Amino acid sequence: MEIKSFKIRKPDEINLILGQSHFIKTVEDLYEVLVNNVPGVKFGLAFAESSGACKIRCEGTDLELKNLAAQNALEIGAGHVFIIFLRNAYPINVLNAIKNIPEVCNIFCATANPVEVVVAENIDGARGVMGVIDGARPKGIEDDKDISWRKELLRRIGYKL
Amino acid sequence: MEIKSFKIRKPDEINLILGQSHFIKTVEDLYEVLVNNVPGVKFGLAFAESSGACKIRCEGTDLELKNLAAQNALEIGAGHVFIIFLRNAYPINVLNAIKNIPEVCNIFCATANPVEVVVAENIDGARGVMGVIDGARPKGIEDDKDISWRKELLRRIGYKL
Amino acid sequence: MEIKSFKIRKPDEINLILGQSHFIKTVEDLYEVLVNNVPGVKFGLAFAESSGACKIRCEGTDLELKNLAAQNALEIGAGHVFIIFLRNAYPINVLNAIKNIPEVCNIFCATANPVEVVVAENIDGARGVMGVIDGARPKGIEDDKDISWRKELLRRIGYKL
Amino acid sequence: MEIKSFKIRKPDEINLILGQSHFIKTVEDLYEVLVNNVPGVKFGLAFAESSGACKIRCEGTDLELKNLAAQNALEIGAGHVFIIFLRNAYPINVLNAIKNIPEVCNIFCATANPVEVVVAENIDGARGVMGVIDGARPKGIEDDKDISWRKELLRRIGYKL
Amino acid sequence: MEIKSFKIRKPDEINLILGQSHFIKTVEDLYEVLVNNVPGVKFGLAFAESSGACKIRCEGTDLELKNLAAQNALEIGAGHVFIIFLRNAYPINVLNAIKNIPEVCNIFCATANPVEVVVAENIDGARGVMGVIDGARPKGIEDDKDISWRKELLRRIGYKL
Amino acid sequence: MEIKSFKIRKPDEINLILGQSHFIKTVEDLYEVLVNNVPGVKFGLAFAESSGACKIRCEGTDLELKNLAAQNALEIGAGHVFIIFLRNAYPINVLNAIKNIPEVCNIFCATANPVEVVVAENIDGARGVMGVIDGARPKGIEDDKDISWRKELLRRIGYKL
Repeated sequence: MEIKSFKIRKPDEINLILGQSHFIKTVEDLYEVLVNNVPGVKFGLAFAESSGACKIRCEGTDLELKNLAAQNALEIGAGHVFIIFLRNAYPINVLNAIKNIPEVCNIFCATANPVEVVVAENIDGARGVMGVIDGARPKGIEDDKDISWRKELLRRIGYKL
Repeated sequence: MEIKSFKIRKPDEINLILGQSHFIKTVEDLYEVLVNNVPGVKFGLAFAESSGACKIRCEGTDLELKNLAAQNALEIGAGHVFIIFLRNAYPINVLNAIKNIPEVCNIFCATANPVEVVVAENIDGARGVMGVIDGARPKGIEDDKDISWRKELLRRIGYKL
Repeated sequence: MEIKSFKIRKPDEINLILGQSHFIKTVEDLYEVLVNNVPGVKFGLAFAESSGACKIRCEGTDLELKNLAAQNALEIGAGHVFIIFLRNAYPINVLNAIKNIPEVCNIFCATANPVEVVVAENIDGARGVMGVIDGARPKGIEDDKDISWRKELLRRIGYKL
Repeated sequence: MEIKSFKIRKPDEINLILGQSHFIKTVEDLYEVLVNNVPGVKFGLAFAESSGACKIRCEGTDLELKNLAAQNALEIGAGHVFIIFLRNAYPINVLNAIKNIPEVCNIFCATANPVEVVVAENIDGARGVMGVIDGARPKGIEDDKDISWRKELLRRIGYKL
Repeated sequence: MEIKSFKIRKPDEINLILGQSHFIKTVEDLYEVLVNNVPGVKFGLAFAESSGACKIRCEGTDLELKNLAAQNALEIGAGHVFIIFLRNAYPINVLNAIKNIPEVCNIFCATANPVEVVVAENIDGARGVMGVIDGARPKGIEDDKDISWRKELLRRIGYKL
Repeated sequence: MEIKSFKIRKPDEINLILGQSHFIKTVEDLYEVLVNNVPGVKFGLAFAESSGACKIRCEGTDLELKNLAAQNALEIGAGHVFIIFLRNAYPINVLNAIKNIPEVCNIFCATANPVEVVVAENIDGARGVMGVIDGARPKGIEDDKDISWRKELLRRIGYKL
């Protein structure tokens, strides 16, 4: 068994959600949940079937993001993993709905940061995600000025009153 | 610290759910959730206590699956991990209820595929699950014929209208 | 890419929750959820921002635990990871509420055991959590006496009737 | 405005779930949730569309229960109300999944008891459910013998350990 | 005690959500949930405080809808009731998030239909919602042509594949 | 059918939760959820069985509140209704956990206000809850001073940052 890593390829501003699921129905359920939660959402998603035909299964409302999802899912190559790219929405808009899909197991990350996916590969070439490196290394502990900045930020963008 | 992997031993058609929890109450709560969700469900489950007596704690309605769960949990040897084997039910029937148990942390996988569990083992022999290899490597991106097949499949088995 | 591990530093009886999230709002949402769920709860939490200022963001109702959370989060150094230390409450009191926060991805562990966090570090020094070693290695499968003990324990502490 | 009541017509042993939703998609989502949660489930459901064509919308896997649901929904005549009849399953198997459907508002009752539905009817003949009378009037407070009986019952049918 | 009813005043195309909660914090939590779920959402909400100052508490991102919510909540006059008006979003986008707010009790309806709210008023003038008449009376059971229409509708608007 | 109302008897400062469920298991599940969510919680609860022996089923950690719950449930006399009284905890600490219990249908109210329960009673004497009058009639719409007060209140008691 070997540990490898892959950098997810995506435009800088695009958010992604990476998770583990267990069934081909994932493709339709993820599509429904995204469309149901954000009016006019633009996204692409891919799920790695890992038995039978072993195809990357894809859906979406944005062809470019759908292809991007398919290519990244194939490159990661880990069974039952899904990846979603979001253009005009944020993970916070859809993550709880995704966590509630009955065949979704867990979410590795949800981020617009650069992401490096760490996988284990066995002697048959099958792979599984071990974890992700999501963005940059933290540089220090916030001080009073940093605290004021983050409180003000959340209120300026309207997420908190 | 060393990275190792274990193949879960199980009959081909049996589904398994592997997760992380935090408390001995997990054993009773998993049992209740399974019995509450599927009338007449046949299953076995095991949870690895990782303090005090450090015993593999087991419940179930099917003796063979209960023993299978206990043996696999002991072999994986990772603290606070649980494993469930399902005979006449599918992960999709019970997974959301399991995710809602107040002491369950996450689900590593839910699958009938062959599963290889990757663990880290420290110098004291204590272990933790890093991730799983769930089934085979994806072979390519679905084409139009594959899309028709999956849509038809989900409707033929009645999961979608 | 390198695999490393860190022992979380904490007083023996203190419970911790370690998870992955995706947004600076995590700090305020975790704070609210903890205060909302347990009257008078004493806790400290830290979240590793992994873009922009890359600061460890902290909140809490107990200064010592807040500092402990900040120090551990900085030492783990993994982007978008959060850690919570609880003094007069248990993970079971708050875990479902945390799982329901819209930007929380997953929970690696919830435990009072000694915990060793396994991280991957890339060539830029950025890190991600692969998994955790939560407590000691299981020593064997429970027998009838062990079963009686655990059933009696859950009823003695009042968690089951 | 007038207050009226209707007795739901159903075979004695059949369980029903009565609720309020807000969108024609309810029909397909209820179908999916029932099929996803209980393997081989036999049910019928109806939803009262209350704009446009104002049709009773029906789905199910059991023709008799589907017709029964349609007839009862039409007789109740309350907008956006749904009713489900279950043959080989119990409300406890599916109720949380129904509560999680994104267009479901609330559940008035889930029961195998005789049910009388209380509705308000306005001068246009439009109706809404005010509440339900679910089964018989309680006769007294349990004593120690009653407590033993209920604890034993829950353990005999396997719902509790 | 007297039973009365009120027609909610609103523009035809505007959706509303009417529910029961238990705490002044409802106002901020509803605001956060709406802003978090739909980017750029336009809404107004009001909550009827029913102790102390007994004020209608309001928030929103659209002044007209905020005033509309306040006026309707005051006219309904029922303690701990909230009402939300949505302009560029649908109840399906936000309803599960609202149901998950820790002080929300239940949802009476979510609809763009005309709504008549039925209240009970006691001798002190205090009121409570008994139920709602949501839209028009159903006119009959769907036939095969109606079924085709609704399946086609859900797929045309993209909610189902 | 007749519409009646009952004032719930309780000490002023005690919070109550009133809801609809569907199964005798409610008693044990409510007990577990309350004990699991708040360390050392003092409460009493009662559930009105509405078939078979038709007994008021009770549990709790505070004898006085348990008796109070039983007496109120018997007086309300509505089938499958439950009532909980909380001494050292608030509905906000436990309400989501209660909503997640698989046999709970809905919550009529959660409040420390005076509550009047409106019931329908049929010719057999069986009853159902139609709704509740929760506290006093709202007196007007908040102005800027009221808004400042409520924002400051939520931050002073620590529920918001």
